[in-house]
Amino acid sequence: MNHDSSMVNSYRPGSAALTVRQQDLIDRRERVLGSAYRLFYERPIEIVSGQDVWLFGPDGERYLDAYNNVVSVGHCHPRVVQEIARQSAVLSTHTRYLSELVLDYAERLVATMPAALSQVMFTCTGSEANDLALRIARKHTSATGIIITENAYHGVTDAVSQISPSLGPGVNLGSHVRTVPVPDPSMGADAGAVFAKSVAEAIADLQRHGYQPAALIVDTIFSSDGVMPYVGPMLTAAVDLVRSAGGIFIADEVQAGFARTGDTFWGFQRHNLVPDIVTMGKPMGNGYPVAGVVVQSEVVARFGNESRYFNTFGGNSVAMAAAGSVLDVIENQGLQQNAQAVGIAFAEALRQVQSGDSRIDAIRQAGLFIGVDLVHPGNDRNADRIFASHIVNRMRDNGVLISATGRHGNVLKIRPPLTFSLDHVSVFIHALLASLATAQ
Amino acid sequence: MNHDSSMVNSYRPGSAALTVRQQDLIDRRERVLGSAYRLFYERPIEIVSGQDVWLFGPDGERYLDAYNNVVSVGHCHPRVVQEIARQSAVLSTHTRYLSELVLDYAERLVATMPAALSQVMFTCTGSEANDLALRIARKHTSATGIIITENAYHGVTDAVSQISPSLGPGVNLGSHVRTVPVPDPSMGADAGAVFAKSVAEAIADLQRHGYQPAALIVDTIFSSDGVMPYVGPMLTAAVDLVRSAGGIFIADEVQAGFARTGDTFWGFQRHNLVPDIVTMGKPMGNGYPVAGVVVQSEVVARFGNESRYFNTFGGNSVAMAAAGSVLDVIENQGLQQNAQAVGIAFAEALRQVQSGDSRIDAIRQAGLFIGVDLVHPGNDRNADRIFASHIVNRMRDNGVLISATGRHGNVLKIRPPLTFSLDHVSVFIHALLASLATAQ
Repeated sequence: MNHDSSMVNSYRPGSAALTVRQQDLIDRRERVLGSAYRLFYERPIEIVSGQDVWLFGPDGERYLDAYNNVVSVGHCHPRVVQEIARQSAVLSTHTRYLSELVLDYAERLVATMPAALSQVMFTCTGSEANDLALRIARKHTSATGIIITENAYHGVTDAVSQISPSLGPGVNLGSHVRTVPVPDPSMGADAGAVFAKSVAEAIADLQRHGYQPAALIVDTIFSSDGVMPYVGPMLTAAVDLVRSAGGIFIADEVQAGFARTGDTFWGFQRHNLVPDIVTMGKPMGNGYPVAGVVVQSEVVARFGNESRYFNTFGGNSVAMAAAGSVLDVIENQGLQQNAQAVGIAFAEALRQVQSGDSRIDAIRQAGLFIGVDLVHPGNDRNADRIFASHIVNRMRDNGVLISATGRHGNVLKIRPPLTFSLDHVSVFIHALLASLATAQ
Repeated sequence: MNHDSSMVNSYRPGSAALTVRQQDLIDRRERVLGSAYRLFYERPIEIVSGQDVWLFGPDGERYLDAYNNVVSVGHCHPRVVQEIARQSAVLSTHTRYLSELVLDYAERLVATMPAALSQVMFTCTGSEANDLALRIARKHTSATGIIITENAYHGVTDAVSQISPSLGPGVNLGSHVRTVPVPDPSMGADAGAVFAKSVAEAIADLQRHGYQPAALIVDTIFSSDGVMPYVGPMLTAAVDLVRSAGGIFIADEVQAGFARTGDTFWGFQRHNLVPDIVTMGKPMGNGYPVAGVVVQSEVVARFGNESRYFNTFGGNSVAMAAAGSVLDVIENQGLQQNAQAVGIAFAEALRQVQSGDSRIDAIRQAGLFIGVDLVHPGNDRNADRIFASHIVNRMRDNGVLISATGRHGNVLKIRPPLTFSLDHVSVFIHALLASLATAQ
């Protein structure tokens, strides 16, 4: 496999000693998997089972999972497992026959959103959801220009890879794409004005090159830009500008959605606005491949009139059962409230670590999504990508899984299942202190 | 929902009387599903469960499924259901950790192919597989031109919708796309020469417009073009031309793959050539969302070097367990051999019906993929789309599910699970005779 300087925390051959078994598995991967695959960690880990917030290796090694947001109600949650097993044995078919399953779930999903967001389309992946959102936006606006954030990630289809600069310089952005920097959330109310100014410039530059703006699309927690959970309506002025220019606003909730941010069920609700399209994926089925688009009915009208859309597996019977059980668990176990409470305590514990370690700069947190900036100590406090990679790997050695993100790769990305408890926070902090101590 | 003249067998409001329950479900769909959704049949059917080749409605109605190729080893096959349930309870995670599951399956998959096709990349849908194949082809060839068949269907992402003319005139083809007609398989060896001539013209036209050819991509059974199972190397000359011009050949096996054609495991093997890329999807997990790309290692090398590719759910633990169990069942139940034997008997039974009904023109069959042309009787024998739609709907009334396809919409598309038996053929023929008798 190739290494990839644009990807934080990717395995690079020769960077650490491996066991015979690890090397054998890596050799097999190099032979039989296409060369675009990447592994995590200096010493990649083998996983054979998972339970709640824990992952287990072949020799019983145990890892605290503080990274995988897909399994947002916990690895192998019994209710989700049971529903997948039950429905798989009864029926697994598509949306061109009538079925209450897809309608029950769709109605339940839109009920979590403002009334204007009334219609659903199901896909299998967040990439497909964003790809479909772009197709809908283009039909609705008769325009093609797209505005994204500087280090955005929206997926891997051809169309959305062109709006995903975080994939690195080997993947071209489209000529119809403009990027805008993400202001520092610590700017408070000013961040919105700064962001709006950048978006205004992007609109003008698109127009100067013959494109009209079709959409502004953002991950509402700006995960790949470094985890930027704004407090207050940072996006409002920018969205107003885009709409005035004939474009729409797409909220990518693949990262922030389904109760992760604690205070709200969807990330866009923290910004106090109503998107034209909302896309979602990863945690929707707790690992079962299901994703989707929720859209205002008039926004999808022209697309629906001129195109049909059929996704063979999208919204299939089992996907709907799995996704329904995820909503059940979030409600029954109070996971939004848990994300809120544990997230605050988690951030507080991190701030105590920060008070004794000048290499930790800002800590940004919303629910159980936390970004921790690591910097060179001293006056300049420049981003320290190498130190972040070191800590991610020492955390792995200490049995805790996280990664790093952001334009400079120096932001620890902490994003555990929503069942994370105060005890798990203690385990995490203990490992973090040990990891920091390896590089004093 | 909108009706869609480009889609054969789509429900059109008002075309038939519905029950209160059907109308209620349709009303709910119109409210909560995006308007690009379509239903099958004049009187859409509600399905609540399935078993092997049978689907069941809410009041115990039973339908013989002669259409759904996704469930290729039968609805709710116990071994697949068990494997999905078992693995879901143990681990469902992604490919950035080491796991034998993905390697075991990948090695098993490439073992079904010629040695040069040695590397796999997993996606969730056939659309994603074809989208990824286009990205790989562009990197490898440094070209962008794509040649497809006249009524091709390759999926619904933005990129592959642009190479899917069967989606109708509301979905634009790319300016870098050229279509070629599919010759009549009854031409025998001449079909290859005719096809090669069309491809040569497409290459020349691309070049005249400033594009170099990146790829020729075909569904190896030409399903949406009307089900065209060639005998012999129809594609060889055309593929040679494309390769001489710097392009590659992509075999889309979403329809033909996984033993459906009976004589071979993959459709491209019937053409006696080795593709540069093979894409697959629908039947791979018997309904579990899993799909993929198999590629020659040197063809994916540049893509892998310049891009990483990560599909969150693609190749996940449960997908691999499901896909592995599908291969088990195909082998253990001899389903390739069954498709071969029952397919021949099925075609023979259809030819007996044809001998007594001049509205049935050609019958084309490979394994359990059968196309039956319906025409106006008389000398011209023009395609009869309305009659085909009538028969599809009468078959539904008689408890058998099929659809229609082809550029003129007059080809009955018969594509049952691979467990179809001679008894099921009898049920089908009985229903067909009754359906034909309703419009003498």
